[in-house]
Amino acid sequence: MRMVDIIASKRNGNELTDEEISFFVNGYTKGEIPDYQVSALMMAIYFRGMNERETLTLTNVMADSGDKLDLSAIKGIKVDKHSTGGVGDKTSIALTPIVAACGVPIAKMSGRGLGHTGGTIDKLESFNGFNVSIPTETFIKNVNDIGISLMGQTADLAPADKKLYALRDVTATVENMSLIASSIMSKKLAAGADAIVLDVKTGSGAFMKTLEDSKALAEEMVTIGKGAGRKMVAVISDMDQPLGRKVGNALEVIEAIDTLRGKGPEDFTLLVRTLATYMIMLGGKASSEDEALRMIDDAIESGKALDKLAEFVKAQGGDPSQVYDTSLLKIADKKKVITAEKSGYISRIVCDSVGVSCMMLGGGRASKEDVIDLSVGIELLKKVGSKVNAGDELAYVYYNDEKNLDAALEKLKGSYEYSEIAPEPQKLIKEVIK
Amino acid sequence: MRMVDIIASKRNGNELTDEEISFFVNGYTKGEIPDYQVSALMMAIYFRGMNERETLTLTNVMADSGDKLDLSAIKGIKVDKHSTGGVGDKTSIALTPIVAACGVPIAKMSGRGLGHTGGTIDKLESFNGFNVSIPTETFIKNVNDIGISLMGQTADLAPADKKLYALRDVTATVENMSLIASSIMSKKLAAGADAIVLDVKTGSGAFMKTLEDSKALAEEMVTIGKGAGRKMVAVISDMDQPLGRKVGNALEVIEAIDTLRGKGPEDFTLLVRTLATYMIMLGGKASSEDEALRMIDDAIESGKALDKLAEFVKAQGGDPSQVYDTSLLKIADKKKVITAEKSGYISRIVCDSVGVSCMMLGGGRASKEDVIDLSVGIELLKKVGSKVNAGDELAYVYYNDEKNLDAALEKLKGSYEYSEIAPEPQKLIKEVIK
Repeated sequence: MRMVDIIASKRNGNELTDEEISFFVNGYTKGEIPDYQVSALMMAIYFRGMNERETLTLTNVMADSGDKLDLSAIKGIKVDKHSTGGVGDKTSIALTPIVAACGVPIAKMSGRGLGHTGGTIDKLESFNGFNVSIPTETFIKNVNDIGISLMGQTADLAPADKKLYALRDVTATVENMSLIASSIMSKKLAAGADAIVLDVKTGSGAFMKTLEDSKALAEEMVTIGKGAGRKMVAVISDMDQPLGRKVGNALEVIEAIDTLRGKGPEDFTLLVRTLATYMIMLGGKASSEDEALRMIDDAIESGKALDKLAEFVKAQGGDPSQVYDTSLLKIADKKKVITAEKSGYISRIVCDSVGVSCMMLGGGRASKEDVIDLSVGIELLKKVGSKVNAGDELAYVYYNDEKNLDAALEKLKGSYEYSEIAPEPQKLIKEVIK
Repeated sequence: MRMVDIIASKRNGNELTDEEISFFVNGYTKGEIPDYQVSALMMAIYFRGMNERETLTLTNVMADSGDKLDLSAIKGIKVDKHSTGGVGDKTSIALTPIVAACGVPIAKMSGRGLGHTGGTIDKLESFNGFNVSIPTETFIKNVNDIGISLMGQTADLAPADKKLYALRDVTATVENMSLIASSIMSKKLAAGADAIVLDVKTGSGAFMKTLEDSKALAEEMVTIGKGAGRKMVAVISDMDQPLGRKVGNALEVIEAIDTLRGKGPEDFTLLVRTLATYMIMLGGKASSEDEALRMIDDAIESGKALDKLAEFVKAQGGDPSQVYDTSLLKIADKKKVITAEKSGYISRIVCDSVGVSCMMLGGGRASKEDVIDLSVGIELLKKVGSKVNAGDELAYVYYNDEKNLDAALEKLKGSYEYSEIAPEPQKLIKEVIK
């Protein structure tokens, strides 16, 4: 088998055989096939696409390319969750304790963030002493003992995907539905869960800008997951403005805790309840959406969900008193206010600008080596649809360093757009694909 | 400017700017842009194509990427010739002495062959002592003194094309008209001629299998050449069976000399006369085809063309007595005959099989390092359209080494196809594009 023939075959519009897909993925991972042949193939795939079988095979071969997490020692149906990412997305921090409180074991691998804000791990490190570098044995023991644990991606999960993604990133071959779906799903399959709930974002602040593309990606991932024997649900949710009201690491933890207390912002609460519903159902703990929603309400109202977060934080070395008293979480002392530049309705808050503004404050990483300031961030007082008068307060900016402050404030101001008539209200949950 | 943006732009179907084309070609040649980005771009070009301006810019930038031959010290209009290659293609050896005898200066750079038989240089080395490694000064002096000289591609002509072509070869991105045309033309432009006659082959033994593709390539190259200020003519000629009757290095030299004596095979003679006509006209030595043809007839009948070849061979260290007595050229002593397997008409002689058969005998290079046996080859006694009876002699095989002989004979036998009715006669000259 020669790589040049595989490239020519895809270029000519043929289906690749399972053997051809294994050959190039494994050859590339081992360094036997050079970058320049794989990038040419990726571009051919960009133009010709892959069918369902090819995409599933690619996903499986990538999932099998490195370590795979063995969760068989954990009792029950393990349900994982994945978000395609956005601004203000602190969902896992509120969602997983609720689901765990409802009896579904949560054994989650998570990563650090690159870009706007930190990832889930960075955010959780707002708790003093919280540690994700735990051995797999401790991870599994914690899930069996308290129903929830989270570890950093220390294992060599899907190295083929890592290498392929890095190549696609610099060769303009990222934007293909099959390649995006297989990249995400290969890591999820290697992480060992029995069921996966996907939070696919849509809108200007999402990777997929249109509902059509988001739906296509969601459907592709659900098909892959089912093909690999997993139970799957995908929720398509709005990312046309930041999620919730707080953006920044510790600030987002506070908002997640508020939500576990039943006092979260409306949009974020709805998203958490929706995702929790499907996780609980896939986990076999409820047989209808109504039943799941009642369990969620109970977990929140009884305080069990909040207690679960405290147990989880404590089990991983963190300070649980910060869960019960969020004033103990460190937020930057210095604060600026930005105000409305004109009167009217807020018609848009450009996600990326809010995210970049937070990164400029020190709340995100421009490169992998950057150290994040977990205490900085942005609190949005008004969201899309709000009527404002010129001079009204729009947002608070929490900062430590004056260096990029002016630029960050300018960026944030620039993220607001105004209209004379009220903008059409947007649904947060666009669609659910099962 | 970032390479990834250039790739994305072409991928999205945009035209590349002249600056973008310069950026990637020069960056790649200098080693500043990696293979894997260039191969992805090549695949995007494969799918999206390039327009006339992009193709001309690419050609010019590649032509400018290394040395350029300065032929300004040669008086008159310098006319170059290029063939897209085929089996039995000894055209330059007969053509250039005729044209030089008609007063058009021939200053030609040529290469060695890879594949079926040798290139023009290999073939000319059948003359004892013939040497193409001459300094540029000698090359130019010879052209001014006797009207013809040929040197090997010692200069660093169009290194960008060399590097790009090697990459395209292993990434299935060769087959794009603009890329093929710019590759050929960049070397021709760097070689410094004022006018270029292209011999574009068409048919099963050619790089372009269909007349449509051959025409498209010819038109693309003519457009590039004119865009670069060169006078251009392209002749599209048949390569559905080997050209002439002899295949192999010294054998082809003998056939070229026969043609200079007016005793060449009909098809080859027609091709040489046609190409010579346009070279003489572009060289400004005749103002009509008829006038050029009369000059050619005179050059052959008077013996001036044969004398020109002898002068040329002598000026480059070769033995001119071999020009006048071809029995002095070394042909392998051992000879086998292959015969017709059935009665009927010969409907096809598969070029590639004949070529590979010759290579198996030692007459071509499988890899760059192979040493060619100039004395071996094949003499075709019957060509397409001949009526044969089973057992009739079809071809002679001249060989030295028994090692691959049986396989070579089998290959040659397998190249013949038979039909019960006479095949439609094919025109040798399909079209002329000016």
